[in-house]
Amino acid sequence: MDISENRMIEENQKFMENKFYNDILPLNRSGWLTTEMFIKSVVDLLLQFIQEINNPNTKVINFHHPTELIAKLDLRIPINPTNLQKVLEDCKEVLKYQVRTGHPRFFNQLSTGLDLISMIGEWLTATVNTNMFTYEISPVFVLMEKEIIETMCEIVGWPSGKRDGIFSPGGAISNLYAVNAARHYMFPRCKAIGMVETPNLAMFTSEDSHYSIRGAAALVGIGVDNCFPIPVDEKGKMIPSKLEEEVILAKKNGYVPFFVCAVGGTTVYGAFDPINEIANICKKYRMWLHVDAAWGGGILLSKKHRHLANGIERADSVTWNPHKLMGALLQCSACLIRHEGLLFQCNQMCADYLFQQDKPYDVSYDSGDKAIQCGRHNDVFKLWIMWRAKGMNGFEQQVNRLMDLANYFTEKIKKTPGYELIMENPEFLNICFWYVPKNVRHLESTEKKARLDKVAPKIKAKMMSSGSTMVGYQPDKDKPNFFRMIISNPATTYEDLDFFIEEIIRLGESL
Amino acid sequence: MDISENRMIEENQKFMENKFYNDILPLNRSGWLTTEMFIKSVVDLLLQFIQEINNPNTKVINFHHPTELIAKLDLRIPINPTNLQKVLEDCKEVLKYQVRTGHPRFFNQLSTGLDLISMIGEWLTATVNTNMFTYEISPVFVLMEKEIIETMCEIVGWPSGKRDGIFSPGGAISNLYAVNAARHYMFPRCKAIGMVETPNLAMFTSEDSHYSIRGAAALVGIGVDNCFPIPVDEKGKMIPSKLEEEVILAKKNGYVPFFVCAVGGTTVYGAFDPINEIANICKKYRMWLHVDAAWGGGILLSKKHRHLANGIERADSVTWNPHKLMGALLQCSACLIRHEGLLFQCNQMCADYLFQQDKPYDVSYDSGDKAIQCGRHNDVFKLWIMWRAKGMNGFEQQVNRLMDLANYFTEKIKKTPGYELIMENPEFLNICFWYVPKNVRHLESTEKKARLDKVAPKIKAKMMSSGSTMVGYQPDKDKPNFFRMIISNPATTYEDLDFFIEEIIRLGESL
Repeated sequence: MDISENRMIEENQKFMENKFYNDILPLNRSGWLTTEMFIKSVVDLLLQFIQEINNPNTKVINFHHPTELIAKLDLRIPINPTNLQKVLEDCKEVLKYQVRTGHPRFFNQLSTGLDLISMIGEWLTATVNTNMFTYEISPVFVLMEKEIIETMCEIVGWPSGKRDGIFSPGGAISNLYAVNAARHYMFPRCKAIGMVETPNLAMFTSEDSHYSIRGAAALVGIGVDNCFPIPVDEKGKMIPSKLEEEVILAKKNGYVPFFVCAVGGTTVYGAFDPINEIANICKKYRMWLHVDAAWGGGILLSKKHRHLANGIERADSVTWNPHKLMGALLQCSACLIRHEGLLFQCNQMCADYLFQQDKPYDVSYDSGDKAIQCGRHNDVFKLWIMWRAKGMNGFEQQVNRLMDLANYFTEKIKKTPGYELIMENPEFLNICFWYVPKNVRHLESTEKKARLDKVAPKIKAKMMSSGSTMVGYQPDKDKPNFFRMIISNPATTYEDLDFFIEEIIRLGESL
Repeated sequence: MDISENRMIEENQKFMENKFYNDILPLNRSGWLTTEMFIKSVVDLLLQFIQEINNPNTKVINFHHPTELIAKLDLRIPINPTNLQKVLEDCKEVLKYQVRTGHPRFFNQLSTGLDLISMIGEWLTATVNTNMFTYEISPVFVLMEKEIIETMCEIVGWPSGKRDGIFSPGGAISNLYAVNAARHYMFPRCKAIGMVETPNLAMFTSEDSHYSIRGAAALVGIGVDNCFPIPVDEKGKMIPSKLEEEVILAKKNGYVPFFVCAVGGTTVYGAFDPINEIANICKKYRMWLHVDAAWGGGILLSKKHRHLANGIERADSVTWNPHKLMGALLQCSACLIRHEGLLFQCNQMCADYLFQQDKPYDVSYDSGDKAIQCGRHNDVFKLWIMWRAKGMNGFEQQVNRLMDLANYFTEKIKKTPGYELIMENPEFLNICFWYVPKNVRHLESTEKKARLDKVAPKIKAKMMSSGSTMVGYQPDKDKPNFFRMIISNPATTYEDLDFFIEEIIRLGESL
């Protein structure tokens, strides 16, 4: 940076120090130049952030303990307005301490990465700041949501005339939609009179399914205890015969089994339940089949790999989060329903002030009354625009490449001393493993287990301090703490995986 | 624009026509210049949009019927990737047809306006693309949410030690949180065993309250029929004596009354229920008091006007949507709870993979397990940054100014022939009125009513075609369709209100 540039920056800063929120639009209609300068200054900060996080050699995290960070940040709301230069500095400060989830070496969650086309989609969404409840104020996005829901249902494999759905704020809410729709389908009077005359309902779900299924059971008044966990096999897949046993037992105990959740990509192991066999049981006992493919839904985009979710076309409802495998920005989750009109019947409250029937256009496009939300964020544009940019083929390549990366990682750690896979051949993008430090490798089983349980948290702590990468860990049943590697970030390269493998060794070898 | 500028634009376009999603970051790590150029091109489009919508003489809406718009737009997902120039054109196309909710003459919803500081907050939020469930990946935003929830609870008037809450995707979900928390408070075993052993529960809410209260009753398994509407007086306020009558009746009929919703700013009339009197009844009958101040919560920021919500400090829970009166971008809604720890007890599912207890930091900062969502969008930053910029005083002025504008509007239409107020002196920012065309003014009551019912939809249709302004309408009980003017957009000026009054006359006078 030369002297004149430096001086310009200083002058800009001084200028902004004398400007406040009411010097720009919308309050100051003649404040366009200041407005533009302010917004462009923010964009510069964001561009710098984007450039940084895409450099694999920068830190993923600049870790501070909560009390340390509280001491560093000034989070209070002031009495008087803050000048715009300070607002810019606030933004800078936030960017400094925020974890870089788009970094190619961030493997900590199912949702990783920063797709820049989805990102500009979200910037546009913010700028038009609208609400999805009516065609009246969201004409383009309402049509877009219809189109994308249609496309997703087609990819799932449902015939036209049996396609419905809605974007919701996350997979947990999508699962809630499904449970509620299933109950309404079976017991429509429940909406009006509650659970009073409803028989004891039983739900069934893989013991490895996401906690939001139990959460939905609690919320809708069925109760967590009436959501029965079905055992999984050594690959983490629900055992259909166990499901049938539980259904029979529940009936014997006076329950009405009505809902089964099969998982398309479990949270920890990435397992796909045997949907076809589960669908047979659902058919036999007249139960609603929900497939929670929040994580694995994206696999349907790959001709090569979509067999993992075979049978999904038989589901009554599907949760599919494009903000996970497809890399759309948070939040972007769809609940798809194979029963047209059911969402309306189930959730409709017919508010006069919003869903007038005498509007000057075809009000069947006002989709808001099928939502459990009233105001609803536009989550479709950021998905639509990235999907347009990649096309079906681009997305297929993206998914295939992630699967290749996962396979590479698995094969490589198989050959790397100290690494032990939890499951020999993971079928999806979750690779679960222990790292066994040298001193632990030759211990006998019980002691090894006890020591291993402490290894992952210790490595994680060192990792967060060093900031070089991030990955999650957890115990599971009798298995002590192990790492769960997730490969969902298109930014990740083979070199990043090599780095990761070495980094775990560096952090863990002396433990 | 001179020739050289024109040529540069053409060259840029040609350049972008040959670039695709995989030519920019993150897939092409050496594609920084193209990345920057692409993002800046989008920013230019957005800046142009912002400038346009702040010009009151531009159109609010460029209306097309659904079938027309479908014909104009290409919404399909292509097989092959789309070049970046086409992506930019897609953005342009969307901006062209989208309703301008930030326009100073957009009065159609409770949420209006485009606060640019909140907007850049949302751009930053998108860019850091993170999830609120753990401190681990959202350290700054988790602390920020804690701070803002604390601040909002303090403004409500709750003592420290009795402050909790969470940001949720909209007021309907915040109300759902409140109903669920109340049920858990009274019947904690319901979470595990469902409604089986729970007595028949009764909820009570103003007949003018938002439909999401009934929606929550349906969803949680209580049933819409068990959510009793309480009559309102001529100002739209719940009549406390009627509430007590209904509570007594419900008890007599074997119900357990447990939840009362008082409204802080009803959707149509903007009425504030008499919270203190309702709180007395709640205390007497040991019921949970929820105040749905989704719309009116912002009034608490004004010393002059906060008396409207007197008694709110006695509530057990409060819904307050900063995306309404405070003008934060959609979505930004808080459910505040006066019982610390209750949200955790109520919603906690203790997922091992996410909320490990052996993390290297104080895990009490992992607030995710008090949510009914798992992944949760960061809705706090866009509020925090605008609140910092305005300070308490700036916000107070904003609210006071909106109240002044509303008062000006009311007084002016009182004196304008053809305008008839539904309520003589609206206390808040909703001004409901009929416009009575000349030919209708002197008709006798029944015929006038029948004619009036068609006037508002007709004016609205003409308004949408001309695109000059937007306002909502609805019927209510025996009242034929009337307009609901909402003054919540800080961009609106006195001149815009004058324009609006004349415009309704222009559109309606000949009907």
